[in-house]
Amino acid sequence: MARSQILLLCFLSLCIGLAFADWNILNQRTKNGLKISLKNYCESWRMNVEIHNIRQFEVVPEECEDYIVKYVTSTQYKVDSERALDESLVYLSTSCSLKKDGRDAWIFDVDDTLLSNVPYYKNYHNGGEKLNLTSLEEWQGQGNAPALEYSLKLFNEIKSRGLQIFLVSSRREYLRSDTTDNLMKVGFHGWKSLILRGPEDEQVSVQDYKAGARKKLISQGYRIWGIVGDQYSSIEGLPSAKRTFKLPNPMYYVS
Amino acid sequence: MARSQILLLCFLSLCIGLAFADWNILNQRTKNGLKISLKNYCESWRMNVEIHNIRQFEVVPEECEDYIVKYVTSTQYKVDSERALDESLVYLSTSCSLKKDGRDAWIFDVDDTLLSNVPYYKNYHNGGEKLNLTSLEEWQGQGNAPALEYSLKLFNEIKSRGLQIFLVSSRREYLRSDTTDNLMKVGFHGWKSLILRGPEDEQVSVQDYKAGARKKLISQGYRIWGIVGDQYSSIEGLPSAKRTFKLPNPMYYVS
Repeated sequence: MARSQILLLCFLSLCIGLAFADWNILNQRTKNGLKISLKNYCESWRMNVEIHNIRQFEVVPEECEDYIVKYVTSTQYKVDSERALDESLVYLSTSCSLKKDGRDAWIFDVDDTLLSNVPYYKNYHNGGEKLNLTSLEEWQGQGNAPALEYSLKLFNEIKSRGLQIFLVSSRREYLRSDTTDNLMKVGFHGWKSLILRGPEDEQVSVQDYKAGARKKLISQGYRIWGIVGDQYSSIEGLPSAKRTFKLPNPMYYVS
Repeated sequence: MARSQILLLCFLSLCIGLAFADWNILNQRTKNGLKISLKNYCESWRMNVEIHNIRQFEVVPEECEDYIVKYVTSTQYKVDSERALDESLVYLSTSCSLKKDGRDAWIFDVDDTLLSNVPYYKNYHNGGEKLNLTSLEEWQGQGNAPALEYSLKLFNEIKSRGLQIFLVSSRREYLRSDTTDNLMKVGFHGWKSLILRGPEDEQVSVQDYKAGARKKLISQGYRIWGIVGDQYSSIEGLPSAKRTFKLPNPMYYVS
C-alpha cells in the first residue's frame, strides 16, 4: 500500500470518528461555570420542555434549532413516541375495566399526535421565528400532513377494543373538511367526533377549551379512560382522564 | 515515518472515533420493527419516565443499568438539573408577588433533590434489584450523602428572598437527627421545618402524605409558591403549589 493511501485511510478513520462524535467537541459554560457542549445545552432545554419545567416558550432557542430539527426527524423521536404509546396500551390492557356500553371513550389530540407537523416545521418554521398561525393553517389546509405511524396503530387498536374515539383539536372550525380529508387520506377513520375550536372557544385558552370539551363528554355519560396529546394543554386541566400520555414535541408550545 | 507507526495512527484514529460513537453501533428492533440501538431504547425509557408516561416501575430495566449510572454521573444530568432550578428562579423573579409577612413558603423534597443518593445507587443498587429500604436507610443513616450543588445555590437564593423553606421528605421519622446532621454538614441550614413520615403517615401513599403536609401548611396560612422534587409524588396531588419543578431521577420511583 502506498504511503498516500495509508494517510488517506487515516484521514477517513478520523472523519468517521468525528461524524459519530455529535457535538461533544463544542464547549460552552453554564452560568454556574459548568463546562458543557451545545448538545448538552439543547438536550437539557428539550428535556425540561418535556418535563414541563420550561413553559410558555415562544420559539426554540436559535442555537438549538438544528438540534431540534435533527431530533424530530430522528429514530430517537420515533422510539420516544412509540414507547409513550406502548405504555397507553399496557394501561388499557391492565387497568381499565371497560363497560362496553358505548360510553367508554378515549381522546386524541390531532396535530403532532395523529398528524405530523414536522414537514411544516422543518421547511417553514426553522428560523427562530414565532409560530405564524396564518402560514401554519395554510399548510394544514392543504391536507398533506403525514400520519404518525405508531399513533395510527394505537388508534386502530383502541377502536378495535370498542372504545369511542374523540379527536379534540385546537384547530379552528373552518379547517374541518380539510382536516377530515387529511386524516382519512392517511388512514384514520371511525372516530366518534372531531371537536374543533369555534369562535367562542377562541376566547379562552386551549387548555380551558379542551377541559370544557371533556366536561361536555362526561356530562353525556362518557368515561374518558385516557388522553394522548403532545401538549400539556391537551392533558392538564379539570376534568381530566384516568390517565394521560404525552408525546414528545419540542417544536412549539400551546397553552 | 515507519509503516507500523502509520498503521498505529490509523488504529488510534478509529479508536477515538468509536469512543465518541457511544452505542450507535448496537442494533435492536422495537416491536413495530424499528431498528434501534441500546442507547435509543434506554433514552426513550428514561425520557418516558421523566414525562411520567412510565409509572410505578420497580427497577431500571437490566439492560439500561449501565446507561442510567452513566447518566446520573454525567454532565448532562447536572445540566438538566441546573436548568430545572434556573427555571424556578425565573418563575420566582417574574411571577410571584411575595407578601413578605413570614407566610411565603417554598417546599423542597430531600432525597435526590437536596441530597444525592447517586453514590448509594451506584454502589449498592446497580443490579436490577428492587429498592432495598433497609440497606438504603442504613446508608442514609450514615449521613454522608453529598449535596446537589445547584440545589444548594437555589436553596440559599430562596432563603435570601425571605421565603420560609419546608423540607417535606418521605424519609421516616427515626432518621431525623441523621438527616439534619447530613443536611447541615453539606451546607443546608435555615429551613423552617423538616417534615418526615411518622408511623401514621406510612399507612398512606407518599403522594397523599405529602399533599396532607401541604394542606396543613396552607391551613396555617402559608402560601406555597413552589415545590422542587424529583418524584411526581412530591409535586402531584391536591392541594398543590402555584408552580412545581421536577428534577430528573431515573433511578427509582416513589408513588
